[in-house]
Amino acid sequence: MKIGILGGGQLGRMLIQNALKYDDEWFTLDPAKDAPCANISYFTEGNFNDYDTVLNFGKGKDVVSIEIEHVNVDALFELVKNGVKVIPSPEIIQTIQQKILQKEFYKKHGIPSPEFQIIQHKSEAGFPLPFVQKMNTGGYDGKGVQIIKTEEDLQKLWDEPSVLESLVDIDKELSIIVAKNENGETKTFPVTEMVADPKLNLLDFNICPSDISEDIQNQTDAIAKQFIDAANSPGLFAIELFLDKKGKVWVNETAPRLHNSGHQTQEGNANSQFEQMYRVLKNLPLADTDANGFSGMLNLVGEENFSGKVKYDGINEVLQLPKTYVHLYGKTETKPGRKMGHINVLAENREDLMEKLVHIKSLVKVVS
Amino acid sequence: MKIGILGGGQLGRMLIQNALKYDDEWFTLDPAKDAPCANISYFTEGNFNDYDTVLNFGKGKDVVSIEIEHVNVDALFELVKNGVKVIPSPEIIQTIQQKILQKEFYKKHGIPSPEFQIIQHKSEAGFPLPFVQKMNTGGYDGKGVQIIKTEEDLQKLWDEPSVLESLVDIDKELSIIVAKNENGETKTFPVTEMVADPKLNLLDFNICPSDISEDIQNQTDAIAKQFIDAANSPGLFAIELFLDKKGKVWVNETAPRLHNSGHQTQEGNANSQFEQMYRVLKNLPLADTDANGFSGMLNLVGEENFSGKVKYDGINEVLQLPKTYVHLYGKTETKPGRKMGHINVLAENREDLMEKLVHIKSLVKVVS
Repeated sequence: MKIGILGGGQLGRMLIQNALKYDDEWFTLDPAKDAPCANISYFTEGNFNDYDTVLNFGKGKDVVSIEIEHVNVDALFELVKNGVKVIPSPEIIQTIQQKILQKEFYKKHGIPSPEFQIIQHKSEAGFPLPFVQKMNTGGYDGKGVQIIKTEEDLQKLWDEPSVLESLVDIDKELSIIVAKNENGETKTFPVTEMVADPKLNLLDFNICPSDISEDIQNQTDAIAKQFIDAANSPGLFAIELFLDKKGKVWVNETAPRLHNSGHQTQEGNANSQFEQMYRVLKNLPLADTDANGFSGMLNLVGEENFSGKVKYDGINEVLQLPKTYVHLYGKTETKPGRKMGHINVLAENREDLMEKLVHIKSLVKVVS
Repeated sequence: MKIGILGGGQLGRMLIQNALKYDDEWFTLDPAKDAPCANISYFTEGNFNDYDTVLNFGKGKDVVSIEIEHVNVDALFELVKNGVKVIPSPEIIQTIQQKILQKEFYKKHGIPSPEFQIIQHKSEAGFPLPFVQKMNTGGYDGKGVQIIKTEEDLQKLWDEPSVLESLVDIDKELSIIVAKNENGETKTFPVTEMVADPKLNLLDFNICPSDISEDIQNQTDAIAKQFIDAANSPGLFAIELFLDKKGKVWVNETAPRLHNSGHQTQEGNANSQFEQMYRVLKNLPLADTDANGFSGMLNLVGEENFSGKVKYDGINEVLQLPKTYVHLYGKTETKPGRKMGHINVLAENREDLMEKLVHIKSLVKVVS
């Protein structure tokens, strides 16, 4: 089967890596000619935001998908008209691409998501402090998002179409990955729990299973079901959730694709998010997602003040640790905050897991 | 690092697949332009038995290795002279390539291996019946091997340099994979147990852990240690063993490379043989090899009477089974007996494992 992926980054690379155990032809499109997928697929150097580029790339493929949501969605609509299968649907990609549409989608379908106001210009802002401003488009990995706490902060408001959203009093950040194939079969991965690095605003540790009550589990299951029903599209989706201090679960946002919060599924679950995505793309029976005990993931991001040819200090010590799995993304150049890889860890219990993750974090540095 | 592999088949493909979680450049050499490695590495179409081809391929690589032992070893000696690292050493590849040298190697180092006679021509044969004739060179996947049972069978003897070897009264066929890096660190995988398909003479089920006593475990451990010490080379080696009905373990033969009897390590062990081989090639700390409970492997080989574009009948049923992992090799054409893929299975105990393997074997057929 000819499978085309818009984006040639690490998510695509790990998708293709996993899928090398099957017989398919993989095509990727990315503006960077040294993209992580460049040497392991039929590679097109090009802009996935450009209508003609995406349209030409998609023609002749059996299925087209994404590993980044910021793509030219008009071209995807056109491909569907031309009989090319696009997963997930252009409609749901478009909804998720735009924070405003995404919020309205949650509201329309009764999916719990923080109160919000939509503005086109900052002059329209009239939302109780404190709140978070999320730009309608262009946000990624924490960019395009800022917290407005005080009257003074209001000066900082971006004069852009945005969502202003009430701040959740966060107890935990959770994530649930849900997949649906064209036959309508759906399956979720166990809920994971995140610990963010406040400095880089990137996911830091991700732990599975999360330490949540049955009630909270029920809330997340209900949200996953509501979402996948409302999305009305095959695909694999990562729903990022806030658990507030009163025990209520809120949707923060959803990614219509493979997600950083699912990386520990590579060794931590019976099958990974990458295997599940593959099965969605080919409309195969969905894979079992059972957790193999406790697992955790640590992102390897470029240290501050280092740019250039990457070096992973301490990596040999890490490779000596049992049930510890290093995943690098084939990126030769590091820069501050760049996601260069991750490390997955398996453990017998949560305490061991946290201890191992903290130990590994102290060992390894991404420098140049 | 620039890593060159002679051979571009499934072993190389799975090695590269695993190693896509690290940052290296992979180069492969194979005579078939549609070899399983062709699209996932810098690929050279060429004959790995040709001196100049191998020499030119190896130049400029940081390390050269093999995924098939029938390669031009003179070129490997020359590459070593030119400062290219070759793993395993050309000496041990040469020894293993030739059944006669291999048998003499076992004898010299006191490694238990069945009694034998070496002949250059069939007229020299003078070995007690029954015995097995193994051609000195050219044997692979059961080819170049025949059993001579009766006086009449002696007519069938190949007139080729050969080893005539006494038949072991086999209770079980076992395999142990042992790896050594340049630092001298060694590690074995748990002993596996094989069940052969008598018709195709190809490995059929491979089960881990094997059901062996402590005494037999000690014998296999001793053999692995004797072998790796005597080989005097970094590398990953698969030692195929016979356990006879009196409880003694004999070496059948050794492969100086990744091996079919290690495929279930992909999901069955903390790390796979492919990860271990990668670590050997880069002289990294060796990986932990603990078994994740019970695992087994079933080869997918082309059915008799089917040639042409491959079809995997029943594969969708298999994909619905929990803890069951399909691995195909990217080969588009099937023919009778061709290794097209394998299926790994995890289970709680040996009975469940056997039941699952037998069930899967009944479900799936490699046809055209």
